[in-house]
Amino acid sequence: MKIIHTIKELREWRKTAGRVAFVPTMGNLHEGHLALVREARKRADHVVVSIFVNRLQFGQGEDFDKYPRTLQQDADKLKNEGVAVVFAPDEKELYPNVEQRYNVEPPHLQNELCGKFRPGHFRGVATVVCKLFNIVEPDAACFGKKDYQQLAIIKGLVEDLNINVEIVPVDTGRASDGLALSSRNQYLNEQERAEAPRLYRELCTIAEAVHNGNLAYAELENAAIQRLIDAGWSVDYVEVRHASSLEVAHAGDKNLVVLAAARLGSTRLIDNIEMHL
Amino acid sequence: MKIIHTIKELREWRKTAGRVAFVPTMGNLHEGHLALVREARKRADHVVVSIFVNRLQFGQGEDFDKYPRTLQQDADKLKNEGVAVVFAPDEKELYPNVEQRYNVEPPHLQNELCGKFRPGHFRGVATVVCKLFNIVEPDAACFGKKDYQQLAIIKGLVEDLNINVEIVPVDTGRASDGLALSSRNQYLNEQERAEAPRLYRELCTIAEAVHNGNLAYAELENAAIQRLIDAGWSVDYVEVRHASSLEVAHAGDKNLVVLAAARLGSTRLIDNIEMHL
Repeated sequence: MKIIHTIKELREWRKTAGRVAFVPTMGNLHEGHLALVREARKRADHVVVSIFVNRLQFGQGEDFDKYPRTLQQDADKLKNEGVAVVFAPDEKELYPNVEQRYNVEPPHLQNELCGKFRPGHFRGVATVVCKLFNIVEPDAACFGKKDYQQLAIIKGLVEDLNINVEIVPVDTGRASDGLALSSRNQYLNEQERAEAPRLYRELCTIAEAVHNGNLAYAELENAAIQRLIDAGWSVDYVEVRHASSLEVAHAGDKNLVVLAAARLGSTRLIDNIEMHL
Repeated sequence: MKIIHTIKELREWRKTAGRVAFVPTMGNLHEGHLALVREARKRADHVVVSIFVNRLQFGQGEDFDKYPRTLQQDADKLKNEGVAVVFAPDEKELYPNVEQRYNVEPPHLQNELCGKFRPGHFRGVATVVCKLFNIVEPDAACFGKKDYQQLAIIKGLVEDLNINVEIVPVDTGRASDGLALSSRNQYLNEQERAEAPRLYRELCTIAEAVHNGNLAYAELENAAIQRLIDAGWSVDYVEVRHASSLEVAHAGDKNLVVLAAARLGSTRLIDNIEMHL
């Protein structure tokens, strides 16, 4: 496994690499990331994993500076997964002009759901993914469904800008108590960690009700929000949406997703469940 | 020479095409375009020319509907130039959702010079060029210096989004009286056509003054504007700028460009001259 830090060296390697599957990450890898890598291995001979903490997608007051950088441990984990290349550029390699001048501007969806609480986040994601795709030129790229809105935006980006990359969605990895795997789980103290699976349970409650024919989405959402608040959470949103467009769901829609974002202490957790009626 | 209308067929052809140079156009080809094609042929075995009148880059009240569509004549001209593929997608092929949802947003330069008079134009250019690059995946692409601001924006786009395409600038083709070749010249009546070379002559006058050490750019610009107005032109701008950044020029800058846009009747003409002191 090669660790490559520059675009030039990556492109040199790429010339002879044949079919490549790509897993973009911000590092601090956990089992959820490794599931993406295993899916990528099924898709191509060569897997490239990028590790880059992307300043563009962090808002003011977000955790860019304290985001864990653990390249050595990450590389050790990837070595056992048959990864060909870890691409770990530094800040100057991807943003040589400090300011990113040309940005990929997603549509209004970027300002809804998580975007409402993280202004500029999805523009930053779309822009860095576009850059990384142009550098790695993969045939396929794997993204976790845990970041469901991110996945929807990347699918839209690829379709709308005619990027020649197959986007492979990968199911959310979960702890045995249902908590979605996330780098941010490590910020939870013991008490918060015990409480955290409630987010998933509330999503399951809504999904079950919908499957049983209850289409009063607003009521279901509000009841879940209230129970989370009662248990000490600050809730950004709980919403039932159309699964692919992420537009507000209407009674009669068959493919839905219920998404939530809420904070325990200072840790923001997100999760979602797809529902196919 | 193949004429290809779909992205799918173009990608199929691309798989085995080796090194490709690309000339994106809106059709209605003249000698200026053919000079781009000849430059492209020097750069690769296979030349792809796209012909697509891009609605995104036309503003309200601009000439999208009356822009000449002359595919058959264009193809005839390209056949003699050793072009491998003419890529001529229809509107639905490039904009299947009618609205382009994900756009490439250039920096403030998009609102200066021509951008001040054509809001949204350079966003439309940047977005369609990004799409075409993703479809054609060329090794090199040729752009005329006549559209100098467009060239600067495309260079910036490629650099900032890490697009793996070499951008080749090609000198402006001119009629024997100096008028820059442009599809829009055909809109000029006889009297306007006789008047049109004045734009280039004014640029030459400024360039000569600057070469002779006159760095009072504002005075030079204003004098040229006044002479154009006196000759019946409506002037959008005449400006001396830094050649690569297109920022306002300062005394002491060594690489400059003087750019102008002005209208004769309803026909808007642009031109520029680079100055290396």
